[in-house]
Amino acid sequence: MSVGRAHTAMSHRPRVVIIGAGFAGLYAARALRHAAVDLTVVDRTNHHVFQPLLYQVATATLAPSDIAAPVRWLLRAQRHTTVLLGDVTAIDVTRRMVSVRGTATADLIYDYLIVAGGARHSYFGHSGWEQHAPGLKSLDDALEIRSRFLLAFERAEATANAVERRALMTFVVVGGGPTGVELAGMLPLIARRALQSEFRRIDTRESRIILLEGGARLLASFPESLSRAATRDLLGMGVEVRTQTVVTQVTSAGVWIGDEHIAANVFWAAGNEASPLGRMLGAPLDRNGRVLVNPDLSIPSHREVFVAGDLAHVDEETRPVPAVAPAAMQEGTTAARNIRRDLEGKARDAFRYRNKGDLATIGRHRAIADFGRLRMSGFLAWWFWLVVHIMYLAGFRNRLSVLIQWAWAYFTYQRGVRLILSGWRAQPPASAGEPPGVGVGRSDRAGSA
Amino acid sequence: MSVGRAHTAMSHRPRVVIIGAGFAGLYAARALRHAAVDLTVVDRTNHHVFQPLLYQVATATLAPSDIAAPVRWLLRAQRHTTVLLGDVTAIDVTRRMVSVRGTATADLIYDYLIVAGGARHSYFGHSGWEQHAPGLKSLDDALEIRSRFLLAFERAEATANAVERRALMTFVVVGGGPTGVELAGMLPLIARRALQSEFRRIDTRESRIILLEGGARLLASFPESLSRAATRDLLGMGVEVRTQTVVTQVTSAGVWIGDEHIAANVFWAAGNEASPLGRMLGAPLDRNGRVLVNPDLSIPSHREVFVAGDLAHVDEETRPVPAVAPAAMQEGTTAARNIRRDLEGKARDAFRYRNKGDLATIGRHRAIADFGRLRMSGFLAWWFWLVVHIMYLAGFRNRLSVLIQWAWAYFTYQRGVRLILSGWRAQPPASAGEPPGVGVGRSDRAGSA
Repeated sequence: MSVGRAHTAMSHRPRVVIIGAGFAGLYAARALRHAAVDLTVVDRTNHHVFQPLLYQVATATLAPSDIAAPVRWLLRAQRHTTVLLGDVTAIDVTRRMVSVRGTATADLIYDYLIVAGGARHSYFGHSGWEQHAPGLKSLDDALEIRSRFLLAFERAEATANAVERRALMTFVVVGGGPTGVELAGMLPLIARRALQSEFRRIDTRESRIILLEGGARLLASFPESLSRAATRDLLGMGVEVRTQTVVTQVTSAGVWIGDEHIAANVFWAAGNEASPLGRMLGAPLDRNGRVLVNPDLSIPSHREVFVAGDLAHVDEETRPVPAVAPAAMQEGTTAARNIRRDLEGKARDAFRYRNKGDLATIGRHRAIADFGRLRMSGFLAWWFWLVVHIMYLAGFRNRLSVLIQWAWAYFTYQRGVRLILSGWRAQPPASAGEPPGVGVGRSDRAGSA
Repeated sequence: MSVGRAHTAMSHRPRVVIIGAGFAGLYAARALRHAAVDLTVVDRTNHHVFQPLLYQVATATLAPSDIAAPVRWLLRAQRHTTVLLGDVTAIDVTRRMVSVRGTATADLIYDYLIVAGGARHSYFGHSGWEQHAPGLKSLDDALEIRSRFLLAFERAEATANAVERRALMTFVVVGGGPTGVELAGMLPLIARRALQSEFRRIDTRESRIILLEGGARLLASFPESLSRAATRDLLGMGVEVRTQTVVTQVTSAGVWIGDEHIAANVFWAAGNEASPLGRMLGAPLDRNGRVLVNPDLSIPSHREVFVAGDLAHVDEETRPVPAVAPAAMQEGTTAARNIRRDLEGKARDAFRYRNKGDLATIGRHRAIADFGRLRMSGFLAWWFWLVVHIMYLAGFRNRLSVLIQWAWAYFTYQRGVRLILSGWRAQPPASAGEPPGVGVGRSDRAGSA
């Protein structure tokens, strides 16, 4: 079945298709709001999620609805914009067609295409690990981690086996980039403080949180002084930090380093593997699967096709633009602006990354901030983090509402979100037993503010 | 493996086990907070849910975390209380043992048992209908309805088939009790107002909501005048109300009345089928599977076993105590008090239901209220409803926080909760085709305030 209104032969307005409604896709769509085009946005979920706060959903600190909004709602005022929920199964750059399957089934003909498919974590060739070591890229991922995190304590409370109990109360976070640091920094607060009074047979203060990094230091994308500050803060919270350490095996029973079974629970925040959509474009890719784009963000040989966000490899003077939210927003905006400039008969702009600074939080009142010459750590940096995130979230929630919600969560550890929804029956209990193999665990992902 | 601290031979304190942490189980547990017992509460979820507001989660009006709280958190101050997450697979009233399997695996020996397993909807012998017509008894149920409700519009927007589109935009609610009325009263507001600006190819104002009731009138447990007021309000909102009408077939393609395929979507709010736990007690049951209890809520031949809540059949003078939340709270409290009185060497009390009135809302600013001599409908009744529910919710959330949240939701239709989480790929698209069969759809459930 062919869809539809925006794509018939009758239409004289250029047809723009955007794949993905993350930061890059959403900002591209918004930048086209006054353009004389017919726009279709396709995403595999019905919501845009504020990815930098996913770790708060994963740790039962914020509710999914606090950090997500329906794509339709976000674009409701753009009458020329149609939103479709579905998987993109094929892109034919010769026929200029995008095939969508799922809830929406459509073959969309485009004049311009912006591909913003993002990235997933990389399991470095061990694709079997993913089911046991959930990542943190979507709301579903975050809810999976939340469920496993809370279930581990339920199982620990129920078991009489001391070895099993210790394994259940140990949590390994793989990857010392911002996501891994933020996740590892929040887990001890929830485990040791929020949950402490609720259990009778276990003492949740004995929970162990281990942060593994394959490289020499945490937060490799930050200056060394801030990396040291973050490590100190994490250690101060009782997080065990192990650098130059790689995971050797992950099974349903947990995670191994060498021959040592160190924990029943493992969460994955390492590596970046670009969306498979990149391979459908016939354009050159870098070794992480990202599409090597022209300075105007179009692909070689198809100037009507743009790539933006984590799927794009954009070279700055010395190194690629980092895979962070502000870069994705800027790339999406630039791709859209270049379409507008085409339509206005103007020359395209080359993308220039404006680095507004990198931020990462550690726990609930410490952070690090790198604004180039200005570097901060500790409480003040945390306030910066808070202000920046409330301002960005304001795009889809009322600022006051977010502030009240957060203040409430901050002082009470809002327990309403500590819900285990469907599916616990499906998960096998943890028990060590399978032999360790060989593998790596290394963070490639850069900052998230 | 046998659990544990509360149940060794060393213990001289009576061991009390409560199955279920709904209103009856939770209120029983709280009523034992100062009793010299060792208490274990078993539930198959980790949270207590405020059931009367489930329809607001199902209609994407409130978030799950707004109406639920972890059972552990609710009972955290009771140091003698252990909470276990698991399914009860057997109750042996002779050996006084409850078998728990799942996250917790335990055989719990009790001196006193309170069984508060609640009820599910009844599909009147058509158990195959349940997968296509989700009910509204748990958060998982509510999220299933929310997902189907939102996906129906996604599919309607994507299809080019006018017949399919009309079926997708038609929603049938089966059962004209309070749950059905409240669900049917909220659907048009979300469908027609909240979603209206977000779609391009469909006009969500054309959505149809049909409320089916097998009996002669809606809200059979209320006085006829209020039943008429509710019907008038629903009709005024554009809900089609069909009484003395039964569903004849439910398949993955939707719902039939006679030979007519009337909708692709069907939500179930009819009938009450008691938890299968009742059958494990060897006690007499009524025709709905509820346990016929003594006036003190114990079962015949086992005075140490109590049944409370929707699973209990308690006779008042003229008719059984209704299956409503206040009755469950009162029964749980009475069962617990009778255990305390046993321990104090006092005679047990007979249960007496104190009817504080019945309430049901219609949409966002109308309700009906029956306080015996005082009957109200319309806006004032809705304010009563609001005040009562905020007061009850206060048990696990701060009143101010709930009020702000609700005010926010009321004025904005908080869109953050309109999330479709995992699983849409698993659902088949709707298409009529299977032949209708024979069946019934009738509401048995009584009021919910």
